[in-house]
Amino acid sequence: MISLTPVLHEESATPLYQQLFVYIRDAILRSDILPGEKLPSLRSLSKSLNISITTVELAYNQLLVEGYISSRPRSGYFVSEISPGSERDLLTPVSPGLDPRSASPYSLPEIYRNNQIYVDSECFDFARWKKCSNKILTDYSSLLLVEGDIQGEAPLRDEISRYIYQARGVRCNRDQVVIAAGTQQLINLLCIILQRMGIDHASFENPGYLPVRNIFKDRNFKMTLVPIDRDGIQIDKLPANIPTTVYVSPSNQFPTGSIMPVGRRYALLDWAYRNRSIIIEDDYNSELRYDSRPVPSLQGLDTGERVVYLGSFSSTLFPSIKISYMVLPKPLLKLFRESLSGYTQTCSKAEQLTLALYMSSGFYQTNLRRQRKLNAQKIQMATAALNRYGKDVVEIINNSSGLHMLLKIANKGKTTEEICAAVAESGLTLAPVSNFEIDGSYSVVMFYYTRIPIENMDEAIQRLLQILQ
Amino acid sequence: MISLTPVLHEESATPLYQQLFVYIRDAILRSDILPGEKLPSLRSLSKSLNISITTVELAYNQLLVEGYISSRPRSGYFVSEISPGSERDLLTPVSPGLDPRSASPYSLPEIYRNNQIYVDSECFDFARWKKCSNKILTDYSSLLLVEGDIQGEAPLRDEISRYIYQARGVRCNRDQVVIAAGTQQLINLLCIILQRMGIDHASFENPGYLPVRNIFKDRNFKMTLVPIDRDGIQIDKLPANIPTTVYVSPSNQFPTGSIMPVGRRYALLDWAYRNRSIIIEDDYNSELRYDSRPVPSLQGLDTGERVVYLGSFSSTLFPSIKISYMVLPKPLLKLFRESLSGYTQTCSKAEQLTLALYMSSGFYQTNLRRQRKLNAQKIQMATAALNRYGKDVVEIINNSSGLHMLLKIANKGKTTEEICAAVAESGLTLAPVSNFEIDGSYSVVMFYYTRIPIENMDEAIQRLLQILQ
Repeated sequence: MISLTPVLHEESATPLYQQLFVYIRDAILRSDILPGEKLPSLRSLSKSLNISITTVELAYNQLLVEGYISSRPRSGYFVSEISPGSERDLLTPVSPGLDPRSASPYSLPEIYRNNQIYVDSECFDFARWKKCSNKILTDYSSLLLVEGDIQGEAPLRDEISRYIYQARGVRCNRDQVVIAAGTQQLINLLCIILQRMGIDHASFENPGYLPVRNIFKDRNFKMTLVPIDRDGIQIDKLPANIPTTVYVSPSNQFPTGSIMPVGRRYALLDWAYRNRSIIIEDDYNSELRYDSRPVPSLQGLDTGERVVYLGSFSSTLFPSIKISYMVLPKPLLKLFRESLSGYTQTCSKAEQLTLALYMSSGFYQTNLRRQRKLNAQKIQMATAALNRYGKDVVEIINNSSGLHMLLKIANKGKTTEEICAAVAESGLTLAPVSNFEIDGSYSVVMFYYTRIPIENMDEAIQRLLQILQ
Repeated sequence: MISLTPVLHEESATPLYQQLFVYIRDAILRSDILPGEKLPSLRSLSKSLNISITTVELAYNQLLVEGYISSRPRSGYFVSEISPGSERDLLTPVSPGLDPRSASPYSLPEIYRNNQIYVDSECFDFARWKKCSNKILTDYSSLLLVEGDIQGEAPLRDEISRYIYQARGVRCNRDQVVIAAGTQQLINLLCIILQRMGIDHASFENPGYLPVRNIFKDRNFKMTLVPIDRDGIQIDKLPANIPTTVYVSPSNQFPTGSIMPVGRRYALLDWAYRNRSIIIEDDYNSELRYDSRPVPSLQGLDTGERVVYLGSFSSTLFPSIKISYMVLPKPLLKLFRESLSGYTQTCSKAEQLTLALYMSSGFYQTNLRRQRKLNAQKIQMATAALNRYGKDVVEIINNSSGLHMLLKIANKGKTTEEICAAVAESGLTLAPVSNFEIDGSYSVVMFYYTRIPIENMDEAIQRLLQILQ
């Protein structure tokens, strides 16, 4: 019988049983006690160390649970066979190498860089949002103790279906609405449904929205890039006679902001009916047009259950919120329920319910009107300032929709990426439009003017032009 | 030249220009005006209808934008060619068929069923969570106006890396932590990385956690189910000589709750080193053990950068929150950054920052202790009640970990699904454990006792047993 002689510290913050556990474990790992050896009985060790039987029992229990020892009925506890491993790792934990923090309660450490970035607190009314959020965390908190609905919370789906009917002419009931944390998540689910339908080919507007293309690529779809003209995607360049899906943004083409006229819309639907294809209509930012009333959706024109409608709240609430939705035609809804019952909802239930309350209280519509007006004013100011100071450096291609203006800028020997990086340093955001072929001396870029407070607009444009000069 | 004779209502809520737009659009759709026909000039229509030129201009502009007409420089406006489509749909919008709501401000419609479901409001302290959430929505709201970090917010990754080192022996810095909205999202990203590494085969514990398997299946991985014994996955049944990934839950096997002893852990690591395979360690619920101290993680034993560590907050905060994380070994982190830069973060930035504050304020640890104690009390009560009233109907297989107890119940001629459905009617939750082979007359089920308030436990168990009798 081996003897154990740990030095235990009664006054330590570490409980006695844990000190004993660590002592025996390390002895086993150092091979001071060998596999097969028998440990002292509970009673005898308790007596020899002058500690309670419970303390010894807890320590042995932990050794048992972690597999260092085993117990044989009516004969006692024995050391287990353990692979010679990297025992040093167990004994001398390496510090994960974090700096000690000077965290005060209720404050975040200051580890955000880019703090000179322009941010306009007028963009969103957080006071009303907070009111709704508090209502959920107080009166509806018991709902949060149950997992969310796979399709999204019913009250929010209800609000969405009512809103998109009234604002965008989309026809659906709440059962057809699927909510997820971002457009990419929706596309991800859609890819699975499409593959189950036997569709493994997808077409895209070129130029178009890359984050969606990535998902299809990683799902191994065959892909076709279809050129756009000023009316949107060119129907005669779409593949014929194969079932495919086409991803379009007809009411606010990304990044050009162009609108697909109603004639082209019917032609696209006809093409989908003939080829038994699915149209994915991304209606992203369509509420944010400043030149005219928003154009009704393609989904509202569809009579053949061929259009999947996509919408998002990240540009009409605040950019970091991750709530997007899609409306599935009934045949796809059936497939969704059959194929995706094993998937869990990605969107925060608390935020979904907060948004449902925010919408049903009328705050969403009020905020949208305010935001549209504010953006229109900013666009007007930015346009005037660009024309005043930068006529020879910048040409405005589109300034009537969304959260960015489309600019054509002179490269002056630099690459687009170099220019965008230099602009980012100044706290402004300029993003390159890839696949937009212009001869080498010019670039087309998106200028995110909405982040600039209106009172800084003139100064910000001057700063931008200084860099572009 | 065609003549237009709309009846416009000055006093209507619909603006004049929009009334004019609808009138002309419908005339085009009814073919009252034909493609190629010229519309009156702005000035002449303004004169004939006695409205301002601006009103006519706005209406024409909307017709232009939506593609019903086109303009030719210096000759005027002409009706476009439109495919004969389902024009009826445009003219007579179908109601989406929603019931009128009796929504009062700040309240959600009562469309939740299952309201007799047991919910224990003691499970989570929403008051403190709300405090942190308000702090973010007030003092840090400007951060929410900028899109989230692809990997997750730095302050939260910082808190997580500190917490899992201290509680679970996981060694990492915040750069290795990736946050996403749920384990399935993390697995989804991981699948893409694994495929880029040339790994297209995955092994799983059987029985095991199905929602993860689904993701691999939908990503077209070849799959092997590996039987478990009481120490966890059987190493000698794992595939040899092919690069594969194995998904395990060593500290709290799902659904059995068994713990992999340290010997088996080293053997599993050795297997991974030999086969150049990746181990995915799902440490789900490992903090919620009631019989012993939590067992240190497999990741902490790994010296070969072969273990991906997964954790989640849905069982230690509240079930509907969607914040999970993984720790990537450095080679995989490199691949993540190269392959997944096109992916956006799925997790709400506001909730990530709220959680960072909740953790740095010490509330997380306090809540965890409280919750562990509460669950231990509930388990004790439930165990006593099951033994008192149901010894002949129910056998407890595991009651020492997680959010469920594992029970063996007599089927009495019913299927497991029928039994679970009957139990659900009473507000209790019993979930079948699939792939758990027992002869036809018994089932193994998970009993979610944590949702039952402690004062209802005895009554709830009696209700359960009545159904099982």
